[in-house]
Amino acid sequence: MIKRIFTAFAAAAALFASPASADIIVDNIQGITIGEDGKLQRFVALWIDDDGRIKQVLDHGDKLPVTDFRYDGKGQYVIPGLIDSHLHVMGIGFGALTLDLSDTGSLEEAQAKIAEYAAANPASRWIIGRGWNQEKWGLGRFPTAAELDAVVSDRPVWLERVDGHAGWANSRAMEIAGVSASSQAPAGGRIERVGGSRQPSGIFVDNASELVQRVVPAPRPEDRDLALSKAQEILLSMGVTAVADMGTSIEDWQSFRRAGDGGWLQLRIMSYASGVEAMELIGGPGPSQWLYDDKLRINGVKLYLDGALGSRGAWLKAPYADEAGNTGLPLKTGAQLRNLMSRAALDKFQLAIHAIGDAANAEVLSAVSELSGTYDGDRRWRIEHAQVVDPADLAKFADHGIIASMQPVHQTSDRTMAEARLDPPRLEGAYAWRTIQSTGAPLAFGSDAPVESPDPFAGIAAAISRTGPDGQPFGGWRPQEAVSREQALAGFTSSGAFAGFAEGRFGRLVAGERADFVLIDRDPMLASPESIRETKVLSTWVGGKEVFAAD
Amino acid sequence: MIKRIFTAFAAAAALFASPASADIIVDNIQGITIGEDGKLQRFVALWIDDDGRIKQVLDHGDKLPVTDFRYDGKGQYVIPGLIDSHLHVMGIGFGALTLDLSDTGSLEEAQAKIAEYAAANPASRWIIGRGWNQEKWGLGRFPTAAELDAVVSDRPVWLERVDGHAGWANSRAMEIAGVSASSQAPAGGRIERVGGSRQPSGIFVDNASELVQRVVPAPRPEDRDLALSKAQEILLSMGVTAVADMGTSIEDWQSFRRAGDGGWLQLRIMSYASGVEAMELIGGPGPSQWLYDDKLRINGVKLYLDGALGSRGAWLKAPYADEAGNTGLPLKTGAQLRNLMSRAALDKFQLAIHAIGDAANAEVLSAVSELSGTYDGDRRWRIEHAQVVDPADLAKFADHGIIASMQPVHQTSDRTMAEARLDPPRLEGAYAWRTIQSTGAPLAFGSDAPVESPDPFAGIAAAISRTGPDGQPFGGWRPQEAVSREQALAGFTSSGAFAGFAEGRFGRLVAGERADFVLIDRDPMLASPESIRETKVLSTWVGGKEVFAAD
Repeated sequence: MIKRIFTAFAAAAALFASPASADIIVDNIQGITIGEDGKLQRFVALWIDDDGRIKQVLDHGDKLPVTDFRYDGKGQYVIPGLIDSHLHVMGIGFGALTLDLSDTGSLEEAQAKIAEYAAANPASRWIIGRGWNQEKWGLGRFPTAAELDAVVSDRPVWLERVDGHAGWANSRAMEIAGVSASSQAPAGGRIERVGGSRQPSGIFVDNASELVQRVVPAPRPEDRDLALSKAQEILLSMGVTAVADMGTSIEDWQSFRRAGDGGWLQLRIMSYASGVEAMELIGGPGPSQWLYDDKLRINGVKLYLDGALGSRGAWLKAPYADEAGNTGLPLKTGAQLRNLMSRAALDKFQLAIHAIGDAANAEVLSAVSELSGTYDGDRRWRIEHAQVVDPADLAKFADHGIIASMQPVHQTSDRTMAEARLDPPRLEGAYAWRTIQSTGAPLAFGSDAPVESPDPFAGIAAAISRTGPDGQPFGGWRPQEAVSREQALAGFTSSGAFAGFAEGRFGRLVAGERADFVLIDRDPMLASPESIRETKVLSTWVGGKEVFAAD
Repeated sequence: MIKRIFTAFAAAAALFASPASADIIVDNIQGITIGEDGKLQRFVALWIDDDGRIKQVLDHGDKLPVTDFRYDGKGQYVIPGLIDSHLHVMGIGFGALTLDLSDTGSLEEAQAKIAEYAAANPASRWIIGRGWNQEKWGLGRFPTAAELDAVVSDRPVWLERVDGHAGWANSRAMEIAGVSASSQAPAGGRIERVGGSRQPSGIFVDNASELVQRVVPAPRPEDRDLALSKAQEILLSMGVTAVADMGTSIEDWQSFRRAGDGGWLQLRIMSYASGVEAMELIGGPGPSQWLYDDKLRINGVKLYLDGALGSRGAWLKAPYADEAGNTGLPLKTGAQLRNLMSRAALDKFQLAIHAIGDAANAEVLSAVSELSGTYDGDRRWRIEHAQVVDPADLAKFADHGIIASMQPVHQTSDRTMAEARLDPPRLEGAYAWRTIQSTGAPLAFGSDAPVESPDPFAGIAAAISRTGPDGQPFGGWRPQEAVSREQALAGFTSSGAFAGFAEGRFGRLVAGERADFVLIDRDPMLASPESIRETKVLSTWVGGKEVFAAD
């Protein structure tokens, strides 16, 4: 169970409360933004009005105005506040507050960390965590309940895989959940079994996770508020000032609103509900207005069409190269998908559909094509991940202005796994950023955190180099799909705003938009990918107020 | 099904949008309020600041300030905006938008009205309504499905009793609901049967209503917004500026928030969730803050301990005088009640518990006594209705400062029925306003609308006279329980604010509080009860802005 930590939100709110508003000049900076013409622009100072909007972007030779305050940028670099177009806000917060196995390099290391955490948290009735990845461990198979029992047997243990598409339970957890050899996996799910027997091995894939998840104590509202606060702190410290939250529940939304009502919401959240029921409950007759000075809006709904490549849940046109006969799982029929899309589109909610495999992407592209006649106008249909697309389908993104919401770090993290799962011809359409963009489809970048770290500089480095933190592979993996530095910056700023109907509000440092920006210690337009990964965020500003400052 | 009517909320919001704020003097008035000392005070003018709060209450001889605007009260009377401490906001709105049988005087009249409504609404898949009362019809029994079938048989019909404690279905509705001779009533509910048979008669009491209710199409968010808008319009036109909403669902709350976010919430709503799950979902870790300039707050939770007297669902210590062996239904065990109360009180939510029968009141009084040691501090436990209290228990209200939230019009509407249900000794503790108040317990008044009309002047007239609109019975029913005019006004203003933790914010016309007031055409401190019932509301103001004006 989530440890309940009582922090003084009131104090935090007071800390960040607006001082008597006044205009401010931020100067002595080397400013970079995507401009109103979509091209890179440089500037030397920002004049911010007392509403926290940019009044003027100043270049060399412009006369500095007289303002109430001046902030000396000390010659450092300023870029727009970064926008992550696909992450899970509460997941980041809970991840930071619970057992995190994402840095473990082997099963043994994970076991040691689990044992240590259990010993350090004797009051926790459940040991909850996430982040394991048997691929990264080089295990060649899923871990087992027995391997968890070996370190914790007195209490239930439930650990989500790094991609959220599988869960790992110990025997006590399965006992509480009433899972046994006679248990059936629900549609869209799979129970791993021991050897050739019916005995559950401890791994529950996709929809089967619910068999255990339903008995895990739900977090309390104060736990949720704490998780939100923690996620916000992490994101702002990394220079992320706006996010698309993919899969907002009504409980998440209420926490976002408490933060807004209480004056401690600093992060801008574009929300996509976790299903059409949550969408209707959160948004009502349609997307909400922008709340709290453009800090929060429900834009639409996130739907899942398939699972992930790692757990072989992604839905492929042909079987996995490394598992004969398995093409992954579609989580909805074509009719179900279209019905849900219609229900959302009818009320002008935006659709953001998770599609990883080429069959899933083809199905969404086809559904959008069929529906976009009925639901016309500026819809901005989104495909989330668009990881593996049949090369024959790539051009279809542009047909209806479909936004490809992609995560550069997935490519660098998953390339070895992808090469195992897919044969070379299918890799042509894998993580095909530049090709998709060249068709004219908008490309919005994100991290999928907590599946990956939300650090946007890692994302920018991956986007322009197709290399991982280790610099591998030399020259980049399928480097023809790398994007330019301008495109990478746009993907994490102006295109992210466009993907969330926020253009004109934030995402660029131009007159009239919210003054969301980040002071950093190097120029991402010139630094090497290795250097970009080392970028130090000096200060983060939202709406003309500093919300993070490095020591 | 609720007819979907599309109104321009945006236009309504624009209509009521704040003009450039400025201070204002409302003078040439005869003002009346409960003052800071709890006593009646008179004044001649109100000075309202540009935040909509009262800056100064002026008496004869005070120098009139120079302000941006002046409003001439033309010598009329001003009282504080009235507070209804117990009603159902969405019920009022939906009642106004659906079939209303509350004005029918006989079964035949109701049948004619139902037939007329069905003919006028051919597109409605369901005929939905409320307000019937077989007591008022002098029927001496419940109506039947056959009597509905006689007027509508092609579509399902579902009509709630006036008190919401029973529903009347036609055969088509029972068929869709799958209700038959073999159906069992759930705990806390009763299915009326035909003659001595098992065949359902069409009437479903208390929890049994859910058997049919679950198949009635739920209103859509836009229907809810329309109902809220309609309820607000009705209440403001009657001089009601603040209400306690008893039984707020998350869907209701989201509609309230859309109104607040959209700038069209004018009514102040103190919300009591429809159960502890809704309470936690709406409020999170505790009561919300006051939102939208004191327009909305979730204070706590409404719990039902019993039903109503009319349907013999009220839980009595001894059987009903008019039904041997029937003592009504407790809807929860003592342990269940205490568990729910603890769960709410632990997080500092206020408890508002529906108790009508003397057994139910005794049980709540006992539970509060047991729990108030653990959950100490300023709790303001509320008993809603407190209609029939064992005289031996009356003094217990004061012991823990329990607020009696009572509805004067229930006494005048129900006295004949109460005399039938209860024998004379039990009438001693029925609707015992003055006795309860004399013990020192706060007394907050309301209407229970849509069970009764929300007209607060009818409530004031009943409170001071114990007579109905017909002036009967002469001299009042048990007139020793009438309250003074000052107490009646306090019950609908300052005490209502106290009961909802709103004192100091609104409820009195004193410096620092919100300028919520009503211009009326007579003096309720001097007019006869008959005249008070005829009071004309000339103008209603909330937060220093006029939100209703009579033609």
